[in-house]
Amino acid sequence: MLRPWSLQIQLRPQSQTPLYLQIVHSFIEEIRRGRIGAGTALPGTRTLSEQLAVSRKTIIAAYDELVAQGWATSDSTRGTFVSPDLPSLPRWTSRAAPSLGVLGGDGFSWKKAPQVIPWAERSENYLIFDDGTPDPRLAPVEIIARTYRRALVRTARRSELGYGDPRGAFALRQAISTMLNSERGLATTASNICLTRGSQMALYLCSVLLVRPGDYVAVEKLTYPPARTAFARTGASIVSVALDDGGIELDDLERACDEFPVKVIYLTPHHQFPTTVSMRPERRLRLLELSKRKGIVVVEDDYDHEFHFDHQPLLPLASASLDRTVYVGSLSKLISPSLRIGYLVSSPGFVDDVANEIMLIDRQGSQTMETAVAELMSEHISSYARKVHGIYKARRDHFATVLTTVFAQEMSFTIPAGGLAFWVQFKTPLALDELVAAAYRERLKILPSDNFSSDGEAPYALRLGYASMNEGELTEAVQRLHRAYKSVKR
Amino acid sequence: MLRPWSLQIQLRPQSQTPLYLQIVHSFIEEIRRGRIGAGTALPGTRTLSEQLAVSRKTIIAAYDELVAQGWATSDSTRGTFVSPDLPSLPRWTSRAAPSLGVLGGDGFSWKKAPQVIPWAERSENYLIFDDGTPDPRLAPVEIIARTYRRALVRTARRSELGYGDPRGAFALRQAISTMLNSERGLATTASNICLTRGSQMALYLCSVLLVRPGDYVAVEKLTYPPARTAFARTGASIVSVALDDGGIELDDLERACDEFPVKVIYLTPHHQFPTTVSMRPERRLRLLELSKRKGIVVVEDDYDHEFHFDHQPLLPLASASLDRTVYVGSLSKLISPSLRIGYLVSSPGFVDDVANEIMLIDRQGSQTMETAVAELMSEHISSYARKVHGIYKARRDHFATVLTTVFAQEMSFTIPAGGLAFWVQFKTPLALDELVAAAYRERLKILPSDNFSSDGEAPYALRLGYASMNEGELTEAVQRLHRAYKSVKR
Repeated sequence: MLRPWSLQIQLRPQSQTPLYLQIVHSFIEEIRRGRIGAGTALPGTRTLSEQLAVSRKTIIAAYDELVAQGWATSDSTRGTFVSPDLPSLPRWTSRAAPSLGVLGGDGFSWKKAPQVIPWAERSENYLIFDDGTPDPRLAPVEIIARTYRRALVRTARRSELGYGDPRGAFALRQAISTMLNSERGLATTASNICLTRGSQMALYLCSVLLVRPGDYVAVEKLTYPPARTAFARTGASIVSVALDDGGIELDDLERACDEFPVKVIYLTPHHQFPTTVSMRPERRLRLLELSKRKGIVVVEDDYDHEFHFDHQPLLPLASASLDRTVYVGSLSKLISPSLRIGYLVSSPGFVDDVANEIMLIDRQGSQTMETAVAELMSEHISSYARKVHGIYKARRDHFATVLTTVFAQEMSFTIPAGGLAFWVQFKTPLALDELVAAAYRERLKILPSDNFSSDGEAPYALRLGYASMNEGELTEAVQRLHRAYKSVKR
Repeated sequence: MLRPWSLQIQLRPQSQTPLYLQIVHSFIEEIRRGRIGAGTALPGTRTLSEQLAVSRKTIIAAYDELVAQGWATSDSTRGTFVSPDLPSLPRWTSRAAPSLGVLGGDGFSWKKAPQVIPWAERSENYLIFDDGTPDPRLAPVEIIARTYRRALVRTARRSELGYGDPRGAFALRQAISTMLNSERGLATTASNICLTRGSQMALYLCSVLLVRPGDYVAVEKLTYPPARTAFARTGASIVSVALDDGGIELDDLERACDEFPVKVIYLTPHHQFPTTVSMRPERRLRLLELSKRKGIVVVEDDYDHEFHFDHQPLLPLASASLDRTVYVGSLSKLISPSLRIGYLVSSPGFVDDVANEIMLIDRQGSQTMETAVAELMSEHISSYARKVHGIYKARRDHFATVLTTVFAQEMSFTIPAGGLAFWVQFKTPLALDELVAAAYRERLKILPSDNFSSDGEAPYALRLGYASMNEGELTEAVQRLHRAYKSVKR
């Protein structure tokens, strides 16, 4: 029998938790901490109701609940007791009061995940040269919202809100297949296509399925860090291959493949990430021939095919063959990153196994959203694409003009034929980390080249995404960058 | 010089691809296949325009494009030539015509992904006993659509459609934290919470971060296959632990942990999957004590906490401590699986590393959808939850009545105190695979116990999700099941 009653019950009348449940939780906590042992008699309902200044009905509800849950037993004549089945436990080590508060002290260890590039949070009054994302303010929100609503109503009526094909909604795979065939020269059906949550998941799936610990993966000297890190995370050794203004350097790649048993070549042939150059046709042919001769898989990341301004984009490598190519794309650049829809294209056999892996990773995406995006693609997206194409081309040209004016002597760059970023190189050496810090003081966030290096070396260069800022913001951002540059070079 | 012109150009006037681009693609295809070598002169624009019966302007546009892309060079007096820089290539091996068609012949090998349980596709006239999903027809579609639209407009205006915190939108992490603290006795802040794409991704992340090849993971004898498979995929050995109507059997678990260096215990204490039983309080205390004594991480999958009908749900194990517990939940059951939003709760240090891993897997979820769901949770969800709670309770009771009536002598089950599925056991042995086949002939899909076995043994039992069917459908489904049963037992 509990004598001088020392239960620590602090009721919070403002809480959303009903009072009787707060009492239940307190008792359980006391039992867990070893402060009330098995078989102990609980105080009478009248006593406790007076002590806590709550109605007796509340105490009775709490005791009923404790009995229902198995923490207590009740005897109509003798009262309520802590269940005798409970094991006798050492007192729970003291811990912070079970109120709101950050819990520290991790009691277990785990494999540390690698750091990728820091994500750029948008913050008040800061301008950001991101890595080439579209302008969220231009997203066709009314059309997306309307289409999503229709898809939601329709899929609910058809009972399709449950679980389905891990490859994703058929309508969207079909729409992407049609687009790839008509605009990018691929020969696909829906069975070649698996939808993913952003293109990053497609790259991750490649790393999981194609690479075993100890395998070699060739990447460009400057490359997309989350891809490189995903491959390295699976245990691959990364081989860094030279890069120039015609894309990946084929002689060096051949040498690398002779020296190491390279299993996968990861590259961004269309608008090289981060340098924006297009891979030259003759190199594409040599690469495909090399891949075939050596049995190497080419993972072709076509992350921003959509925006190409000066001529038609080169056809993807995957248009030649899907036999040894995994093609990765996304709808983030065209519609909105908030949709989180990417896709992977390869042979149906590989795609089926990708789908099995997806069953483990996240089962599937949102069928409703995928259905909505399929409708967007077939009905609305081409006129929207034309509109933003014009806006981004104008921003690109404006950005080039401002850069040339402000950094006349100090910087060199080529206006990119497509994509949403510039690659600018400083003509004289400077400390990139100091430039980043100085820019931050000017309320400007930038991504210097060392973020992208796959071999530790990095040129004095920056990747400057221009598309998410309008003309006025671009001018202001370049001026801030120049002030930062001046302060570092002084 | 190309003599008798043998280019295979088949123009498709109905295609969305402009004619000149079709010509460009055909030329590139011919070059790739080795049918036109480097330096070859292309036919005159007039000749080709006559041959193809298209305007000469179209041919000129095509040639300009080939030059722009680097496939050809042009000389104002002599004409257009295939670029001399292209390597001389062996003829591309013959392949299917580059028209629509399934590409076969996988030219590379990959790690085969394991098969999980087959996903149940909804099909015309079939009824499905799923594994316990809510009824999509009851999803609050108008509220979801309206809230999503508002969130989309708001986040676009605030420039938040770009990339953000890989742990997910703060507002939703905060809303989930508040809900866990007030309704489930946890002590969390938003920093304890990471959003995932469905609870499956949370389980996958646990497998990736907690398990190294060779580690041991203990699971219940009957368990949730995608969780078991995810742990096995990471290289863990699975230890199967006995299970009875009080949940996981603690003596057997202790023995397993003495025999093997178990690193992780995965379990579903609230409504055991698939058997629906609740883990008894004294076992919970013993489990927490064991976890502490041996330094074992408990992964607590609380996959359908929301629907509990007969008394208040037991508090999760994670309410005692997050130091050695990873708590996994989802909003699929309460709102709609189509949202694909789950969450993982643990110490902030572990959560931060989970976020780093997410940067590799899919970077983040949809901030817009997460923001919308936060608003749903704070404003609309409790009245909706009350409504469906009543509906599902009625369906549960109806289902129990029908099962008892139709299978009077042949089946035993306990009405589950919560959750959206029944676990029914046949009183006499029968061939489960034959039952599945017979049910399919009756246009009914079922999930027999062997799907859930972690040691190859399985009782004569089924998990029957009842919530996605209304009363009439449930009656019909039970009758179909009985006909199938009769045909197997005949």
